[in-house]
Amino acid sequence: MLSDYEWRGYSFGLQPDVDQFDAAAAVDITGCDIYHPSEDHLTGAEIAFGGAVAYGLKKAPYLVLETQAQGNFGWLPYPGQLRLQAMAHLASGAKGVEYWHWHSIHNAVESYWKGVLSHDLTPGETYREVAALGREMAALSPYLVGMTKRNKVAVMVSNRSQTGLAWFPTCRPGETPEKNYSDFLRWLCDSLYRLNVEYDVLSDGERDFSSYDLVVLPCLYAAPEYLLEAVRDYVEKGGHILATFRTAFADEYLKIYHDAQPHMLTDCLGLTYDRFTKPENVTLTSDTMPLPADAAVTDWMELLTLTTAKALCTYRHPVWGGVPAVTVNDYGRGRAAYLPCCFSPEGLDKLLEGLLPQLGVAVGPVRFPLVVKRGISAGREITFYLNFSGKSRTVDIPHPAGAFLPDGKPIAADEPFTLPPWGAAVLQS
Amino acid sequence: MLSDYEWRGYSFGLQPDVDQFDAAAAVDITGCDIYHPSEDHLTGAEIAFGGAVAYGLKKAPYLVLETQAQGNFGWLPYPGQLRLQAMAHLASGAKGVEYWHWHSIHNAVESYWKGVLSHDLTPGETYREVAALGREMAALSPYLVGMTKRNKVAVMVSNRSQTGLAWFPTCRPGETPEKNYSDFLRWLCDSLYRLNVEYDVLSDGERDFSSYDLVVLPCLYAAPEYLLEAVRDYVEKGGHILATFRTAFADEYLKIYHDAQPHMLTDCLGLTYDRFTKPENVTLTSDTMPLPADAAVTDWMELLTLTTAKALCTYRHPVWGGVPAVTVNDYGRGRAAYLPCCFSPEGLDKLLEGLLPQLGVAVGPVRFPLVVKRGISAGREITFYLNFSGKSRTVDIPHPAGAFLPDGKPIAADEPFTLPPWGAAVLQS
Amino acid sequence: MLSDYEWRGYSFGLQPDVDQFDAAAAVDITGCDIYHPSEDHLTGAEIAFGGAVAYGLKKAPYLVLETQAQGNFGWLPYPGQLRLQAMAHLASGAKGVEYWHWHSIHNAVESYWKGVLSHDLTPGETYREVAALGREMAALSPYLVGMTKRNKVAVMVSNRSQTGLAWFPTCRPGETPEKNYSDFLRWLCDSLYRLNVEYDVLSDGERDFSSYDLVVLPCLYAAPEYLLEAVRDYVEKGGHILATFRTAFADEYLKIYHDAQPHMLTDCLGLTYDRFTKPENVTLTSDTMPLPADAAVTDWMELLTLTTAKALCTYRHPVWGGVPAVTVNDYGRGRAAYLPCCFSPEGLDKLLEGLLPQLGVAVGPVRFPLVVKRGISAGREITFYLNFSGKSRTVDIPHPAGAFLPDGKPIAADEPFTLPPWGAAVLQS
Repeated sequence: MLSDYEWRGYSFGLQPDVDQFDAAAAVDITGCDIYHPSEDHLTGAEIAFGGAVAYGLKKAPYLVLETQAQGNFGWLPYPGQLRLQAMAHLASGAKGVEYWHWHSIHNAVESYWKGVLSHDLTPGETYREVAALGREMAALSPYLVGMTKRNKVAVMVSNRSQTGLAWFPTCRPGETPEKNYSDFLRWLCDSLYRLNVEYDVLSDGERDFSSYDLVVLPCLYAAPEYLLEAVRDYVEKGGHILATFRTAFADEYLKIYHDAQPHMLTDCLGLTYDRFTKPENVTLTSDTMPLPADAAVTDWMELLTLTTAKALCTYRHPVWGGVPAVTVNDYGRGRAAYLPCCFSPEGLDKLLEGLLPQLGVAVGPVRFPLVVKRGISAGREITFYLNFSGKSRTVDIPHPAGAFLPDGKPIAADEPFTLPPWGAAVLQS
Repeated sequence: MLSDYEWRGYSFGLQPDVDQFDAAAAVDITGCDIYHPSEDHLTGAEIAFGGAVAYGLKKAPYLVLETQAQGNFGWLPYPGQLRLQAMAHLASGAKGVEYWHWHSIHNAVESYWKGVLSHDLTPGETYREVAALGREMAALSPYLVGMTKRNKVAVMVSNRSQTGLAWFPTCRPGETPEKNYSDFLRWLCDSLYRLNVEYDVLSDGERDFSSYDLVVLPCLYAAPEYLLEAVRDYVEKGGHILATFRTAFADEYLKIYHDAQPHMLTDCLGLTYDRFTKPENVTLTSDTMPLPADAAVTDWMELLTLTTAKALCTYRHPVWGGVPAVTVNDYGRGRAAYLPCCFSPEGLDKLLEGLLPQLGVAVGPVRFPLVVKRGISAGREITFYLNFSGKSRTVDIPHPAGAFLPDGKPIAADEPFTLPPWGAAVLQS
Repeated sequence: MLSDYEWRGYSFGLQPDVDQFDAAAAVDITGCDIYHPSEDHLTGAEIAFGGAVAYGLKKAPYLVLETQAQGNFGWLPYPGQLRLQAMAHLASGAKGVEYWHWHSIHNAVESYWKGVLSHDLTPGETYREVAALGREMAALSPYLVGMTKRNKVAVMVSNRSQTGLAWFPTCRPGETPEKNYSDFLRWLCDSLYRLNVEYDVLSDGERDFSSYDLVVLPCLYAAPEYLLEAVRDYVEKGGHILATFRTAFADEYLKIYHDAQPHMLTDCLGLTYDRFTKPENVTLTSDTMPLPADAAVTDWMELLTLTTAKALCTYRHPVWGGVPAVTVNDYGRGRAAYLPCCFSPEGLDKLLEGLLPQLGVAVGPVRFPLVVKRGISAGREITFYLNFSGKSRTVDIPHPAGAFLPDGKPIAADEPFTLPPWGAAVLQS
């Protein structure tokens, strides 16, 4: 196993203790362990995020070396959830799924990480679902082998920035940090996930972003100058970035830059700032962007001065009111957006719906809990439809004609079909 | 002192660090330290539970070697509470009550465990109540000396099971356990207490249950096979058991059994299971048992498959709905009930009111905060009436003719009498 | 720096680790570091309390060696707040204010204690406010040099009592203390502050209180006999004291006194007690004192027996109801009040409004967030008017004729004037 994750009782965020992109140089194929809440709390967000990391390490399909069968206590899968999870892994670029573990063990600390078999070593509900799934995956294999992802959005992660935010968290003196780097990373990734915008995860060692329509830079705190140069060049040549608060504040050794922030990006973003604080009773407001009424600003806010950037949103607050809160700036042939603050996930979903199209990314009509993921296998497009909810859902959106896999049942272009609770379907077109 | 208790700032549960039944072999008479909340939080539940443990160690009267006089900060007794507490100790089988301590001390960490005298070493309210109590206990002594308990219900405790649940608590990965073995033990014991069903506490080294109408097995997680055989035989010959979730899951070395659970009890209980989870939005429902509308299932739930058992209650839940939640099974000449889940104390009180009569145990009309406890001394029945509330209460229930102790004032059969707030009366009949 | 404070992420209470009055013998001029919440949470209470400690160490003006410029994260000053803070320091007796620090530093753990300059080393909003303030302070200097305080109320602090309460906190066994010595000290000091009653802070090594109209003794737990004798003599000769719960309970070595409590003060206070507990569902009630309806008694309550004292308030509670809760006692030519319990800050404000005049202290009409502080410089009275709120306020109270400093603009007696949000004005008269 190479890729695992910041652990909060489950696989939550970026692994903080090692730069996995550095470590991945030593292996040929990446593998990962992904564990996550289940039952009513199954969202697929950890599968999507964790899969994007595992895929990103080598930009290639990976193995799920471990994931939950019956899981630890309180994660007993509802009927259908194990199959849904497996399809979500394949849809993210996994080329295989293994369970921890075959049978529940009778001694030692992992006794309650229950396996495909319970402690009685007898086929039960979980075994039967896994067995059926195994047959289905065998039948799917010829269609899916070698499937790769072609995402047009990338999210850059940075182990150094994670360390920087751990030292200097977003809380007042004497307070315990409520959020860390991974929270802000997931804040963005999960919003993309809910909007069905698939994303790659990129290393901060990357220089060439030309294959992406948009590069997202969440809290890229510790940014070496050569990286900032690459980012700037990318925008200048027509690329789009969406950077957040705390980006480009320090160098790769966590030494804070001593000129105008964000370092080397003031022209590209069209703004600068030298003050920031913890928001309290601050909300986002906008004349042009649709936002929920209660988009509370949380955790961190910068007080921007715009040079060439345009404010899309401003703060509402007795003192800081009117200060820009979301900006865009045309730079060279590209465009750069900046989020100087964190705010509610609902607010982010609404904002990105309006903002992403300005950054070269179309946002389709499908929203979580219906999840659509795509890949290319043998020149054919493979589309996964995943229903992360306990209600059956009709898929009633534009799609090409094709056939359900593995049985080959044809489906006409745009023909509606229904997914059962926690159901999944795979289409080839 | 031999018997003390799991300490939560007061004597809460079973002592976790030693098997006291093993340790008791070294002493002739058991003694205990019992401390507990006071003022509005005085319930007598710790006195009843702690006394049952101390009595159970030798199946004989014990000494209260330490209990609170003025207590630590925040436990100042209301008028009458010290007498009520002492009577509750005697009613539980104590043959003496000693206070920690004579006078409040002027140095060191126990300075605020205040004694019978305050730091001023001068008789005060507490001294006067204790002095009057001393005179009353001297007068009671001739009637109470040698008093023994004759309970028909036993609750089995298990230090090994306590260790097992500490290793594998009822919480999800990353969560802090909200409850431990003692919580589940007290969940059952306190419900019996509120229903005025007195109970003995039994060691898991016990083999012969023939003197009991009902043996309760709360979370008997680590159960040696010879014990399970004894339990099964007891039921077969006409006994009754009430076992809970997590019973008979592992052997005495905490190795999980690798056949159908509950190990060796599947026939006796008429059921098996291989899945369990943390309940969320699950309530109990029943066509036949009276239950409060909001009997929330908490902490742990097993998904039973019944063979010969009958479901008394089922779960209400979108996915797990309809699965049996309380069962009874006729086995041999006896009967075995099973609780595969924890639920609200109010729900348990209601359930046991209906269930105990099916298990050979009559439930009378008296409910906490009026507490009735009984013993036999010199062939006469001694009944203690204890009012654990700040309101005076009329005792208006069937009782034999007799006399109040120690003054000998006669009382006719069923004649009502009144207890003052936090009052107590002792009757001989 | 000599004086700093109990740190809760900011300067909250009395420094617990050393008796600063002892340590102050080694220096000529005292200095202090004062940090505190800002933005909507700026109250000036820490500046007033911390300043009173720093002034009290030598009974002389002191230096603010460090205070916040932009502060740590979440303390960014609103416009005007830096000037207001500086004026509040001067008004408390500071003869200079220095900031931590000149520029924000680019490495190490204090990187986010932001300076007058931000990390960009370029003049920004904070620099501009500090620069203007520097010019104003230069102009004020001729008028304020050598300004001293002439407070008629003193609050005694005691490092030994602080240690005593840390060992024996006001919580039940098994609970975490919610409050410590500094909380109770601040409870009284902050109420005086809100009533605009300025106070000196006195050492418990003090013997001569003759220059004060009132000496407040908050939780003077560890009181040497020579101090208690001095307190008693002070009252006998016409002084006033206001002592609280837990006063005079132990000697200077924390050995609890073994006679009637409060030791040596029973005659002076006209009462004694030997019982105390944690209040629950207890409120204050009074026939004669104005109190808010919900003046909840909290943390600690003693059950007093009055000898010559008069009860101003009593407890409302089913059991402890009617027991005296606030008392006054005439003793010699003076008067001694006692608070045997803690209660809500709102309740204390109301109580002190009525009680202070009975103890020789007039309470004027001005209330926080408008704060008035006074000093004497070159024989002229200097009055500071400080608006600790985000709303402009008209100062419409009696005052002598004089002139605003430093510009000398005259103002007639009682002439109203307006302070902007977070504004301050200095008058000479």
